[in-house]
Amino acid sequence: MSQAAAASKEHPTPASAAKDSGKPKIVVLGSGWAGYSFARHLDYKKFDVHLVSPRNHYLFTPLLPSTTVGTLEFRAIQEPARSIKGVHYYQAEATELDPATKQIKCKEAFTGMEFMVPYDKLVLAMGATTNTFGVPGVDPKNHVYFLKQLTDARMIRNRLVECFERASTPFCSAAEQTRLLSFVIVGGGPTSVEFAAELHDFVRGDAKRLYPDVADKVSVTLVEASHQILGTFDSALVKYTMNLFQKRHVNILTDNSVVGVKDHKVLLADGNSIPYGLVVWSTGIKPVDFTAKLEIEKVRGRITVDERLRVPALEGVYAMGDCAAGKDKALAPLAQVADQQGRYLAAALNRGHEEPFKYVHLGSMAQVGDYQAIVDWHGTRVKHGSLNGLLAWAIWRSAYWTKTVVRC
Amino acid sequence: MSQAAAASKEHPTPASAAKDSGKPKIVVLGSGWAGYSFARHLDYKKFDVHLVSPRNHYLFTPLLPSTTVGTLEFRAIQEPARSIKGVHYYQAEATELDPATKQIKCKEAFTGMEFMVPYDKLVLAMGATTNTFGVPGVDPKNHVYFLKQLTDARMIRNRLVECFERASTPFCSAAEQTRLLSFVIVGGGPTSVEFAAELHDFVRGDAKRLYPDVADKVSVTLVEASHQILGTFDSALVKYTMNLFQKRHVNILTDNSVVGVKDHKVLLADGNSIPYGLVVWSTGIKPVDFTAKLEIEKVRGRITVDERLRVPALEGVYAMGDCAAGKDKALAPLAQVADQQGRYLAAALNRGHEEPFKYVHLGSMAQVGDYQAIVDWHGTRVKHGSLNGLLAWAIWRSAYWTKTVVRC
Repeated sequence: MSQAAAASKEHPTPASAAKDSGKPKIVVLGSGWAGYSFARHLDYKKFDVHLVSPRNHYLFTPLLPSTTVGTLEFRAIQEPARSIKGVHYYQAEATELDPATKQIKCKEAFTGMEFMVPYDKLVLAMGATTNTFGVPGVDPKNHVYFLKQLTDARMIRNRLVECFERASTPFCSAAEQTRLLSFVIVGGGPTSVEFAAELHDFVRGDAKRLYPDVADKVSVTLVEASHQILGTFDSALVKYTMNLFQKRHVNILTDNSVVGVKDHKVLLADGNSIPYGLVVWSTGIKPVDFTAKLEIEKVRGRITVDERLRVPALEGVYAMGDCAAGKDKALAPLAQVADQQGRYLAAALNRGHEEPFKYVHLGSMAQVGDYQAIVDWHGTRVKHGSLNGLLAWAIWRSAYWTKTVVRC
Repeated sequence: MSQAAAASKEHPTPASAAKDSGKPKIVVLGSGWAGYSFARHLDYKKFDVHLVSPRNHYLFTPLLPSTTVGTLEFRAIQEPARSIKGVHYYQAEATELDPATKQIKCKEAFTGMEFMVPYDKLVLAMGATTNTFGVPGVDPKNHVYFLKQLTDARMIRNRLVECFERASTPFCSAAEQTRLLSFVIVGGGPTSVEFAAELHDFVRGDAKRLYPDVADKVSVTLVEASHQILGTFDSALVKYTMNLFQKRHVNILTDNSVVGVKDHKVLLADGNSIPYGLVVWSTGIKPVDFTAKLEIEKVRGRITVDERLRVPALEGVYAMGDCAAGKDKALAPLAQVADQQGRYLAAALNRGHEEPFKYVHLGSMAQVGDYQAIVDWHGTRVKHGSLNGLLAWAIWRSAYWTKTVVRC
């Protein structure tokens, strides 16, 4: 008897999960793009669906940077996991998989109580977490924040306002003002670029109006380890964005990285340091603990799946989104990949078809502030090319906002 | 030399406050209805205006209950203190008044640093705080919250959702579910009634949809020390509201009060106790520390003012809003009183007129849920009478929402 199965003697199964509904029991781990999209599209009349996730909402991540400065409200970009029809939801973290008895061990979010959920089919969609590469001092206590969850965005917004308030207090020294209003962004991907853009709009708008005495002391620094920002985007768009940011006096440091955070200072690989009031850390991802602990075949930490998203070694187990990767071709950890995989697998199970998953790239977008955006259609079926400026922003806005704001 | 003046040797004056602008220096304490309305209407071309308040925003308090369940967003009902044109704002608490040297000692909100602000004219508009009448256990740590500030409303919203989530966890006992979903409201004024109404709408709407298994276990109890709720309202409206709440199974306990909060239980004066998941405490007001410490004439703890809102014993000092009261007639601590006083005093100083303040009662309103409200015009110039139901709700909504939502 395996360890997990033994544990099931101590750890009960919720009545809702133990009940035999006469339908195959499908358990989904994760409420991100992949898990949410899968659970929403799965036919609950055919399947008994159970969703386990420590986060009780799905998050429309592309608009997360817009909430940090108040362009959008936090609630506008989330959807409760419980709102998916026909799904049993458990606010809990999966801690152990027992493929022999086909059970998942879970830890309840509030009470810490452990319980077992049995499955016929299991869908692994736990996503990934931000990678700090072991750099010491990356901690909200030091005002260094990720930008992946709503709580992150809320902390960033609060700290941002606090920096301006503190800099505006009487007797705040010029050096301290400069430090408080020094905002450092680590990582040069789309999330970083969009946060820099929102920050720019905020400083030129609200901050200039509310903190006129200090708004011109703001400095923004973006640190990127490789030789350019927006690595996956078309080079013309990268150049366009670089020019735009240079005009705005965003200090872009490429071929450099943060090796430590200490005493309100970011320490750089080149030996320099930057005093800061706020750091946003967005430097790529790493597997969550549950994925890391799984002793199965992986591709750079991501669970290996076949062309139908099945995990070869585990019967009835699928994986998708950021925690999974094809053996031959690892797709980028993008929202649109996860979303399409969720829809694909739901359709495959609903209809019982056995066609392989095919990813359709819809292009890459990022808004860059001042009602401007960049859109990259390379690699899409639609068109080869790129676009920047106001029209691109309109496309960015309509693609995302119509999906969210209308229902808030 | 007085103590405060002596302190000024140690405690510096901000450059902005020390500077001689050639205009009379007016210092306002407080950013509530009275202080905000005064500062907004004062002519900054004639006066050098300085606003001191620990709260960096003005709050549209009548809509605060609506934010607790998400009907309105928090940001929609606030306005930054810094947005008032021509006003120097200090996020600080006034701690000491020295009328001899005409200075106010302040404590900076972030650093705790103490500094002095000199004045030619001083306007006291610190408001009041919630009165707990010394009842032990009234503390957010025990999930007992006031409903006076944005932070209160945010804590209530978070706790409310947590109660439903906890009650929905597997293995939550029936007794624990009943406790978690028992919501107790202490005090029977308009704020309490409106919170009960919002709670009702939330339970019937979102909660029923998201937590269908537990929504019918919700109980709401309102405890009022006097013999009826909504003491200041017309008796027909009170009866209407009582009937409405009885239909909704809101348990109204009059002639009873809370004498303690312990072990997730509210202890009542009649010896009974109520297990709870959340308590909202709204039982009237008491002076803030600064007011309590002032050794001047008061009316039931409120600073005595004459018919022009002057504090008789202190030259150049005015008081208004919840912290002030006329010697012969103490107006109720209402938003509309404070708002009118702020406008009146600004106009009096702008134009130099010496007419007395005259309060114009515009009626009392409360929304009671299900798109219904009560409006009481007794004591107004417009009309003697009252109204309830949908039309009243439309009046309530248009009176308040048009002032706020349009600018969010």
